[in-house]
Amino acid sequence: MNSQPPVPETSVLAVASHVVSGHVGNKIAIFVLQSLGCDAAALNTVQFSNHTGYGRVKGTKLAAQEITDLWDGLKQSHLDSFDMMLSGYVPGAAGVEAVGRIAKELKAGAASKPGSFFWVLDPVMGDNGKIYVAEDVVPAYQSLIHHADLILPNQFEAELLSGVGITDSASLERAIEVLHDTYNIPHIVITSVSLPIRSASQTPSSTRPTSPTQSQLPTMPTMSVVGSTRTSDHKPRLFTIQFPVFDAYFSGTGDMFAALMVVRMREAVAYSDIDSTQHTASWLSPDDVAPTDLPLARAAEKVLASMHEILARTCEQMPSALSAAITRLATRRGVGEDVVRAESETMHLLKSQAAELKLARNLGCLREPTIEYRAEKM
Amino acid sequence: MNSQPPVPETSVLAVASHVVSGHVGNKIAIFVLQSLGCDAAALNTVQFSNHTGYGRVKGTKLAAQEITDLWDGLKQSHLDSFDMMLSGYVPGAAGVEAVGRIAKELKAGAASKPGSFFWVLDPVMGDNGKIYVAEDVVPAYQSLIHHADLILPNQFEAELLSGVGITDSASLERAIEVLHDTYNIPHIVITSVSLPIRSASQTPSSTRPTSPTQSQLPTMPTMSVVGSTRTSDHKPRLFTIQFPVFDAYFSGTGDMFAALMVVRMREAVAYSDIDSTQHTASWLSPDDVAPTDLPLARAAEKVLASMHEILARTCEQMPSALSAAITRLATRRGVGEDVVRAESETMHLLKSQAAELKLARNLGCLREPTIEYRAEKM
Repeated sequence: MNSQPPVPETSVLAVASHVVSGHVGNKIAIFVLQSLGCDAAALNTVQFSNHTGYGRVKGTKLAAQEITDLWDGLKQSHLDSFDMMLSGYVPGAAGVEAVGRIAKELKAGAASKPGSFFWVLDPVMGDNGKIYVAEDVVPAYQSLIHHADLILPNQFEAELLSGVGITDSASLERAIEVLHDTYNIPHIVITSVSLPIRSASQTPSSTRPTSPTQSQLPTMPTMSVVGSTRTSDHKPRLFTIQFPVFDAYFSGTGDMFAALMVVRMREAVAYSDIDSTQHTASWLSPDDVAPTDLPLARAAEKVLASMHEILARTCEQMPSALSAAITRLATRRGVGEDVVRAESETMHLLKSQAAELKLARNLGCLREPTIEYRAEKM
Repeated sequence: MNSQPPVPETSVLAVASHVVSGHVGNKIAIFVLQSLGCDAAALNTVQFSNHTGYGRVKGTKLAAQEITDLWDGLKQSHLDSFDMMLSGYVPGAAGVEAVGRIAKELKAGAASKPGSFFWVLDPVMGDNGKIYVAEDVVPAYQSLIHHADLILPNQFEAELLSGVGITDSASLERAIEVLHDTYNIPHIVITSVSLPIRSASQTPSSTRPTSPTQSQLPTMPTMSVVGSTRTSDHKPRLFTIQFPVFDAYFSGTGDMFAALMVVRMREAVAYSDIDSTQHTASWLSPDDVAPTDLPLARAAEKVLASMHEILARTCEQMPSALSAAITRLATRRGVGEDVVRAESETMHLLKSQAAELKLARNLGCLREPTIEYRAEKM
């Protein structure tokens, strides 16, 4: 493993949830950022014992005023200088607005030096047709996103933000057009598209896969990310990356994706052939850069490569992790393992634990993944 | 850099402070633990904007009940199984007692399987003759330490815990005897001893250094750590490691030391020639193991090697980091750099920032340090 970090010195303010045990929110983002060489500040919006997928959780949330106080604390000690900001889960509309004020202040401070600040916003609101935050969080994000440089909604969040129901490729494109045009958002990646997306190379007469690796995709179900960096006249430059999905439910994948995007976007722009991009507001590429040559596409390829490797390792270890957890609990209680296996609520807890993303022992997957899934023009 | 972590799978519960910006408490411990391959749970006892050395800070502390609630949250989801625990700064005596109850529960749960749980306790109370916690924290620690497997006091904290004033080698030995015997503590490392400590090899007729590297020590001021693992009849096995100190004030070194000790102690015991140690309560070595052959001594050597490399890198970058911070602030305010340099309070803040430990870009120093300073029998 190369001991050199992949990015130049980069200070990132990460605002998201914290869990004592497990890997979601800032608990995963901070490790990803640090282990890839960023100096990461961690403003934790909640401290919970574990993620909510377990079904049981204890802990505390920060009030909007407490978020603002921590930011004021940074400012009064001159610790408020950041190259990038990543915002994830924030409890409540007032909290979202407080985080938005931080981003706007950082953006205003960087106005005289284009490209010196970049805000990656993960608008955590819901998934699969269901909103899991308070209703007023949606308009709070809608009034904020035009300040963001890159947003990372899932398919449902993209619908909420754009007001466009996504049912096919055409409506997906329309949603991205609205986000680029109405909200003026420079970069968009929709992180989990379950529609069949046809890449430009997949014409009716040419449906064969574009690489040997991608030829293996039909053996596993696939999903896509769809990304776009707008042109100077607010038109999309669309690309898609298809990747296989594992038959398991993981928490924290969105947070891992977002933190990796921060690093890989920085890397792609800093070491791009086109040096001017990093000194351009919002790191917008010149109009003649093709969709698949965008730094955003380069970054997303590397991000998905790391994600795939981490998820594969996690999947590999799940059966033994679950089995060990069952044995441990049965021994502690002095009962047979069959007793534990018969308790569905207990098994849900132990399965949730076994599905926690395995990062700490797989540093190589984060730092030097092998790119297998390539961006294609849509 | 080797991509294999140095320890077998190890789950650690780390209880300490959290800062948004900078590197102290859990902010440094969690990264150290994770980047060396441990699965680290982070129970943050405070969330402050920055460490208190800046002189200005905002944020919140957890009440003792909130600490207990988070622990109850872990228990109700069966996430309360840990191989090791590291406890650092806890605000107030009630908080210390709450953390003590967690450690005692973990210890009781592991009673039937000797060596399956190990508590590293950093009794954060003060330094250089000054207590910086509430007075009732001292008796709270005194009533807890006999449950710990390894304690990491500095010289002043060792005095507070043992009741022995440390003025020379003899009184230092006496303090360690009291901690081993009265409090039954298996392993002790006193982390910053500024007394001249004479190693066994330094008899009046033989004061030359024991290695070429150590011969360079006279060019820099030195300090020592002094460690001991007790024998079966509660006698000390004392060793010392002398190391050079940098002419700068760093925060978080104690927290980095403690987190590295967790990992390196686990490594030293897991991969020891004497396999039985890891299955012995408190990882006590057989009585015939010499002081300098103790896993504790092996671990401390590696810890100090990482510390020295990280501090050297931090020192190297301090002048440029300070200069960049001054330029940034002057530009933002639209004033000359001399204006900033003339403000002593501002300069204290910027110097504190420049002295933040540089970890994220120096992963190799954490994972594969070069051992230069060796343990010697006292």
